[in-house]
Amino acid sequence: MPRPPRASSAAGAPGAGSRARSTRAAKKALPLGRVYRLLEPGPVVLVTTARAGRANVMTMSWHTMLEFEPPLVGCVISGRNFSFEALRKTRECVINIPTAGLARQVVACGNSSGRTRDKLEAFGLTPVPASRVAAPLIEQCYANLECRVVDTRMVAKYNFFVLEVVKAWVDPAVVEPRTLHHRGRGVFMVAGRTIALPSRMK
Amino acid sequence: MPRPPRASSAAGAPGAGSRARSTRAAKKALPLGRVYRLLEPGPVVLVTTARAGRANVMTMSWHTMLEFEPPLVGCVISGRNFSFEALRKTRECVINIPTAGLARQVVACGNSSGRTRDKLEAFGLTPVPASRVAAPLIEQCYANLECRVVDTRMVAKYNFFVLEVVKAWVDPAVVEPRTLHHRGRGVFMVAGRTIALPSRMK
Repeated sequence: MPRPPRASSAAGAPGAGSRARSTRAAKKALPLGRVYRLLEPGPVVLVTTARAGRANVMTMSWHTMLEFEPPLVGCVISGRNFSFEALRKTRECVINIPTAGLARQVVACGNSSGRTRDKLEAFGLTPVPASRVAAPLIEQCYANLECRVVDTRMVAKYNFFVLEVVKAWVDPAVVEPRTLHHRGRGVFMVAGRTIALPSRMK
Repeated sequence: MPRPPRASSAAGAPGAGSRARSTRAAKKALPLGRVYRLLEPGPVVLVTTARAGRANVMTMSWHTMLEFEPPLVGCVISGRNFSFEALRKTRECVINIPTAGLARQVVACGNSSGRTRDKLEAFGLTPVPASRVAAPLIEQCYANLECRVVDTRMVAKYNFFVLEVVKAWVDPAVVEPRTLHHRGRGVFMVAGRTIALPSRMK
């Protein structure tokens, strides 16, 4: 079930600016050096793009950190996805991290194409303007990473894009996010308990 | 705490052959087309290498699937790691997937270097001969992926190796593995409950 947008009153606000502020009130900017802590555990993510004024969203699990700071993320976006051309042309996207309450939307986004429908609207995902890129943030996701494509050398062979995270937002109220981790064929592991061990590792 | 090796009687067996068979009795070969189901959820892994008869192990979280079949995996192994040169020279490794019972060993491997000690022995991790590569499997890990390096074009810039999984082993008794997912600074999320949704996604 979709969680109600945390700032639903802003949905009818007059300008993009106030909608953006509504998200920034709920979420805080995350220092870029901490972005790896969100992606390293391997959550399924929703990638948003925007091309010629049309936003789209896709489900994606094949990503890895490549560098701590500035945070670089490598990810596979198949050429079969409608988002592929948008990403290649605009060189911008947002990586949105959903939690378990969005499981149905995650699966729905993965089983349909933006070629034939407005998936954000169809699945009740609220687009909110980003600060540095044209692609929208998804309000209902607890974290949003605004990204620019910085290297496309591995796209021809592996559909592998290198992204730089240029701005990161996170909901400070979500301490142990129940992220979703795909095990194939619609089976997901939901993030469980947290343990902490003394470590010098970053 | 280390789990006792499932086939501890084989530790003193005369030849590598019988030790390998002992693991193959407990674990089954996994069809290569299903390897993505193990790595896509983003578990921390233990990477073993072997060079000039000397095995080593390191902790690694920066990996992603790149292709379903043959399974290709991209991963970052920093040049600061002792394993880097071994992987570059031998072009072989094993990705071993630990579960929560091995959390201490995972952290210990990440906080020490094979330059100065035999980490497998120091941390009670039992090396078992692999079938296709010289690097050993770790007996205590529930899954082991024998890998060959197939592309090094991204190593100079990102320390990013492309590996092909040439043989995969998994313990069929482990249905919901309590894998570890690093959140930074020794904090780990332990894999929680499983949910299944109708999906056409692979």
